[in-house]
Amino acid sequence: MPLMKSWVASANTADCPFPLNNLPYGVFSTDGTEPRCGVAIGDQILDMAAAEESGLIALGDEPLFEAPYWNDLMAEGPAVWAALRDRLTALLAEGSKEQDKVEDLLVPMAEASLHMPFMVSEYTDFYAGRHHATNVGTMFRGAENALPPNWLHIPIGYNGRASSVYVSGTDIRRPWGQLKSPDHDTPAFLPCRRFDLELEMGAIVGTDSDGPVTVQEADDMIFGYVLLNDWSARDIQAWEYQPLGPFQAKATATSISPWIVTKPALEPFRTDTPVREFELLDHLKDCGPMLYDIELEVALAPEGKAETTIARTNYAEMYYSSAQQLAHHTTAGSPMNTGDLLGSGTISGAEKSQRGSLLELSWGGKEPLTLDTGDTRSFLEDGDTLTLRGAAKGDGYTIGFGDCTGTILPALADPYKR
Amino acid sequence: MPLMKSWVASANTADCPFPLNNLPYGVFSTDGTEPRCGVAIGDQILDMAAAEESGLIALGDEPLFEAPYWNDLMAEGPAVWAALRDRLTALLAEGSKEQDKVEDLLVPMAEASLHMPFMVSEYTDFYAGRHHATNVGTMFRGAENALPPNWLHIPIGYNGRASSVYVSGTDIRRPWGQLKSPDHDTPAFLPCRRFDLELEMGAIVGTDSDGPVTVQEADDMIFGYVLLNDWSARDIQAWEYQPLGPFQAKATATSISPWIVTKPALEPFRTDTPVREFELLDHLKDCGPMLYDIELEVALAPEGKAETTIARTNYAEMYYSSAQQLAHHTTAGSPMNTGDLLGSGTISGAEKSQRGSLLELSWGGKEPLTLDTGDTRSFLEDGDTLTLRGAAKGDGYTIGFGDCTGTILPALADPYKR
Repeated sequence: MPLMKSWVASANTADCPFPLNNLPYGVFSTDGTEPRCGVAIGDQILDMAAAEESGLIALGDEPLFEAPYWNDLMAEGPAVWAALRDRLTALLAEGSKEQDKVEDLLVPMAEASLHMPFMVSEYTDFYAGRHHATNVGTMFRGAENALPPNWLHIPIGYNGRASSVYVSGTDIRRPWGQLKSPDHDTPAFLPCRRFDLELEMGAIVGTDSDGPVTVQEADDMIFGYVLLNDWSARDIQAWEYQPLGPFQAKATATSISPWIVTKPALEPFRTDTPVREFELLDHLKDCGPMLYDIELEVALAPEGKAETTIARTNYAEMYYSSAQQLAHHTTAGSPMNTGDLLGSGTISGAEKSQRGSLLELSWGGKEPLTLDTGDTRSFLEDGDTLTLRGAAKGDGYTIGFGDCTGTILPALADPYKR
Repeated sequence: MPLMKSWVASANTADCPFPLNNLPYGVFSTDGTEPRCGVAIGDQILDMAAAEESGLIALGDEPLFEAPYWNDLMAEGPAVWAALRDRLTALLAEGSKEQDKVEDLLVPMAEASLHMPFMVSEYTDFYAGRHHATNVGTMFRGAENALPPNWLHIPIGYNGRASSVYVSGTDIRRPWGQLKSPDHDTPAFLPCRRFDLELEMGAIVGTDSDGPVTVQEADDMIFGYVLLNDWSARDIQAWEYQPLGPFQAKATATSISPWIVTKPALEPFRTDTPVREFELLDHLKDCGPMLYDIELEVALAPEGKAETTIARTNYAEMYYSSAQQLAHHTTAGSPMNTGDLLGSGTISGAEKSQRGSLLELSWGGKEPLTLDTGDTRSFLEDGDTLTLRGAAKGDGYTIGFGDCTGTILPALADPYKR
């Protein structure tokens, strides 16, 4: 599919992240106004609350854009999602008869602040990148026990904390936690010393389920994708994670990129999961290409300094698709709801430069990275700004997500002093 | 504290679970009416929506009982909680001048159906009973590795699934899941064969936090307690839980008792956590008695047969209080919200008859229980009804929770056929 032309001129370049082919969904505000839903096109945002109020967008009897979240639209399901996309495409395409009316509803992106695009219902994080699982398993349990016996048969996941999912740009406070150094007999309560990122994609559940769903049904339920950084306190994790998994190590924050990129925008980039040594059981089998060819990168900028790209990889590296993860998530009968967020797991490639966490990049701190500025990093330091970027490259166009950034604030001097 | 007398005569007996000393909060409906908030007193329920509408209850400018959940009241915080309890006590006490008006707002409990008393925001389950952790650890990892090194230093917990928390009386469908028998090389997708209960208490978070809280602050945030059954699929759990903890094994359902018993009702029953081998770090230290002397029991009735009490224990057996668990939950900075539910972890005593799960009672199926009916049980069978009961015994009165029951439905023949 080639670039689709819009009358919004800035949307018509090969490297604009928000061409007419994309139409991602976010929530924005401008000085003195309340947050509201918007659609990115070029360097502009279409104000959806205003578009609905003016009657330019009318998808049913009930308003869908009164709340500053996309959840109401998400809950409507695929037919309404498609109707909205068709209507937006018609309104914004070159030659649209309604250009005059729509122009009044555009807000320059440069003047907008972006907010959480949806209300997170529950958050689950997976562990579905084979290179990542092998690397971490080798460090935590030794090379012979790197991949647990179940890993090639089910997408391993754990429930995370929805209350600490934040939009890109939110500062991240270094946490305190209980940890135990190998050279001490007893634990201590200290600021985290091994604070890390995890480069992931997040899949957003659009429609509810009640009972087990197939992989195809799961794919149909997914509304769209964001970039996701699962901030991780490695020293807290090492002490707490046995036997019931990570808890406070992953509780501080999860950052997501501000624009929900929908499945139709990513459709041309679908790709297969890798060849498997063990055939998956029927209920988890691939039923079509359900990963996406999305180029990903991680950049780190020390405070006041230029950034260095510290990793480049691709979402196609995953062993399990989000649809497979969601299908697995429903096997025991738990309902899934509009706004559930599923982290893919850290996305690492086979090469050292393709690793999606500092834990892997510095091999547990044993091989510190040297940045372009000359600084070295084993883990994140206070003042560091971390940025995830993602792009699917089409024929003369780009599908972008918007940066997913966060700056590390120093730990509180005393977390109990207020 | 002795029995407080109410003009509702049925509330004035030593074994009534809902005397004036209790005043627990639930949600009920009667034939043809919408669910609404209610307070249990004797064999009656005071209709809170009607009481507020009539002006008998007026706690502020905004109505608190329009929604069929206690969350709005919970979010108001301790001063409003106390004001409501004072007002209810005055209205329902012997000699109340408003008895006539209140009588019109009473609904016989026998005519009511009970619903979820609050909207669950997020659900966390802990693993804080020492006898349980030792028993399970011995079975899963051997006696020498029974208690993980961290266990005596932090309340181990994991995030669970809020979408599958159900009120008592909801039938529980036996789940399918991926599992691997020791005598097979590869896993299979099958109905769970080792479906189990876990006897727990649930603590309900009333007020929000943003950042770490002390144990005392955590205790202040807790609104009340329910009985909680964390249904568990042991065969799914054994296959999936390494390395990131239980996931689908605990996703099918969590049942809670229908009445939220508030802290003031339990105040006379406060008791200390046990003597510890390792002193806890300062931020987790006990700062007063924060467990409760609540007698607990588990009864199992095969389909169409009489029930057998299979375990009797006490909430005072816990190693960590809910306040300590909540304090730990906030250490890394994750906000806690109104409606968060914290499972205590399975409550087992030192004796075999005090074990809070069939896994422990039948020692992994090796020592099946014989019920009074002559039936034997290693794990739950289809048609079994499982009931948790709890009571704090005061001076001539009882604080009850209402039964927490569930009946096991057979697994679906084909979970993907609809």
